[in-house]
Amino acid sequence: MTDRLIEKIKKVNNPTCVGLDTCFDYLPDNVKAKCNSLEDVSKAILDFNIELIDTLKDVIPSVKVQVAYYEMYGASAMDTFAKTLDYASKCGLVTIADVKRNDIGSTASCYSNAYLGSVDINGKKFTPFKSDIVTINGYLGSDGIDPFVKDCINTDKGIFVLVKTSNPSSGQIQNLKLETGQTVSQAMGDLLEEIGKPTRGKYGYSSVGAVVGATAKKEAGELRARLPHTFFLIPGYGAQGGSADELSVCFDKNGNGGIVNSSRGIICAYKQDKYKGQSFAKASYNATIDMREDITKAIQKTRV
Amino acid sequence: MTDRLIEKIKKVNNPTCVGLDTCFDYLPDNVKAKCNSLEDVSKAILDFNIELIDTLKDVIPSVKVQVAYYEMYGASAMDTFAKTLDYASKCGLVTIADVKRNDIGSTASCYSNAYLGSVDINGKKFTPFKSDIVTINGYLGSDGIDPFVKDCINTDKGIFVLVKTSNPSSGQIQNLKLETGQTVSQAMGDLLEEIGKPTRGKYGYSSVGAVVGATAKKEAGELRARLPHTFFLIPGYGAQGGSADELSVCFDKNGNGGIVNSSRGIICAYKQDKYKGQSFAKASYNATIDMREDITKAIQKTRV
Repeated sequence: MTDRLIEKIKKVNNPTCVGLDTCFDYLPDNVKAKCNSLEDVSKAILDFNIELIDTLKDVIPSVKVQVAYYEMYGASAMDTFAKTLDYASKCGLVTIADVKRNDIGSTASCYSNAYLGSVDINGKKFTPFKSDIVTINGYLGSDGIDPFVKDCINTDKGIFVLVKTSNPSSGQIQNLKLETGQTVSQAMGDLLEEIGKPTRGKYGYSSVGAVVGATAKKEAGELRARLPHTFFLIPGYGAQGGSADELSVCFDKNGNGGIVNSSRGIICAYKQDKYKGQSFAKASYNATIDMREDITKAIQKTRV
Repeated sequence: MTDRLIEKIKKVNNPTCVGLDTCFDYLPDNVKAKCNSLEDVSKAILDFNIELIDTLKDVIPSVKVQVAYYEMYGASAMDTFAKTLDYASKCGLVTIADVKRNDIGSTASCYSNAYLGSVDINGKKFTPFKSDIVTINGYLGSDGIDPFVKDCINTDKGIFVLVKTSNPSSGQIQNLKLETGQTVSQAMGDLLEEIGKPTRGKYGYSSVGAVVGATAKKEAGELRARLPHTFFLIPGYGAQGGSADELSVCFDKNGNGGIVNSSRGIICAYKQDKYKGQSFAKASYNATIDMREDITKAIQKTRV
């Protein structure tokens, strides 16, 4: 899968993805005013997402869809979540379902069936939330990750496992120093290098990637050097305070190695002074182009 | 919330909950044969759950509903998940949504709204998956947990955060030794003791509980001693291999301190030789009574 993602990134010359964290409050006022039920909201979010995908599909390689923003509006919005993934996939985008699922092996299999593999009902197969890549929390160790890896191999899919997250308190557990000298996030990363071995592709990266936040330059640089076969999903750029300079350490000397996400910075761009007066779609397009320039320039700088 | 749970446990004299991990394969053959779509499965699971709840509601304090077994069947099954929680709550049971959600603060708020708090749509409030307690993965640290704790305080709810899980590879991350001498799971537990402080109830336990597996007696006993104000959700009994003797260390000298879950052992009891020939509901009832006897006896033994 990571080969496919890297090729898509190269094709549009853009190592960034747009996060469709489409919250009710992010919808334009005239749309919001018409919503009276969770079903209304679910429909409005789907319309908003489709317009965004149509606008951005030729300049981005991928969308990341954060399920919490759908789960919050109930079962009808979970249908919107599925339809959003489906529509983005039909438009040729690599779809990342940001679900951070985790459980013991038998239950992790259920999650993997829902997103990457399939469920079998009397011989008919279904994948309700079909995605190319899902995010995973690895606190339970390898037997909570293996069912996903099995589906990665069988269906050419990928996962990103939380290693060093972008939030302020991420260090409380992840930066704890072990008696061996490494940190918890480094131990998690080492586990992924090992688990990912059978899935390495032609660019040297496995389909078992890592989430490494743009807000922790030092840790991110150390992880890049330590995990040469692990592709990074990099959140935290923009609204969360991460800069292109900080996250450029996540890329290798060929400019590969990661994909940067921005959610609010793109989908709420129409609320920023910089894009004032533009439609939400137009503002998102311009913010996407600005982000691409900012990040490709920073990556280029580290390569010279 | 934990006060309410403890009182409910005392009322039915049963420190166990039944896990409604209702997978298609667990349904009786005649029900399975009629299913051709995810919608059919969703309806069949709801009927199965309702019959189980009706059968067990007077002998158990709580049900734990594992969302992966619903998510796997798509949006229609998420509706079944919501209706199962709702029905169990109407029957007077404490509902535990086993979702193991986790994310950065702003996104964790969305999850908390979905399960414990509410979402606001133009002045109307909705809680799509209303639960008394949710499970959480704390790898992101306190700012991923705090939104849930805020809702615990505002709406008298509770959370259980993964500390030491019941799966075979749980030690890979959770048992790592820190340079301070403690393990990662102990550090997680210490964080919960601290975060839970403002939510302590009259039995001494906070509403910020911990998931501590029945399959790790040594670690569980150390955690019980270390975390005197943290109530435990104890998975791993039965199908996963944990025994009543092993998990009895999770309880305090008053017999409080935890609730033991069994899922497959109860809802698939009708497939066991011991309960052969009984309807699935009758077999589940008998397995529930057997589990109660086994566990209350083991807890009693540690108190004398």
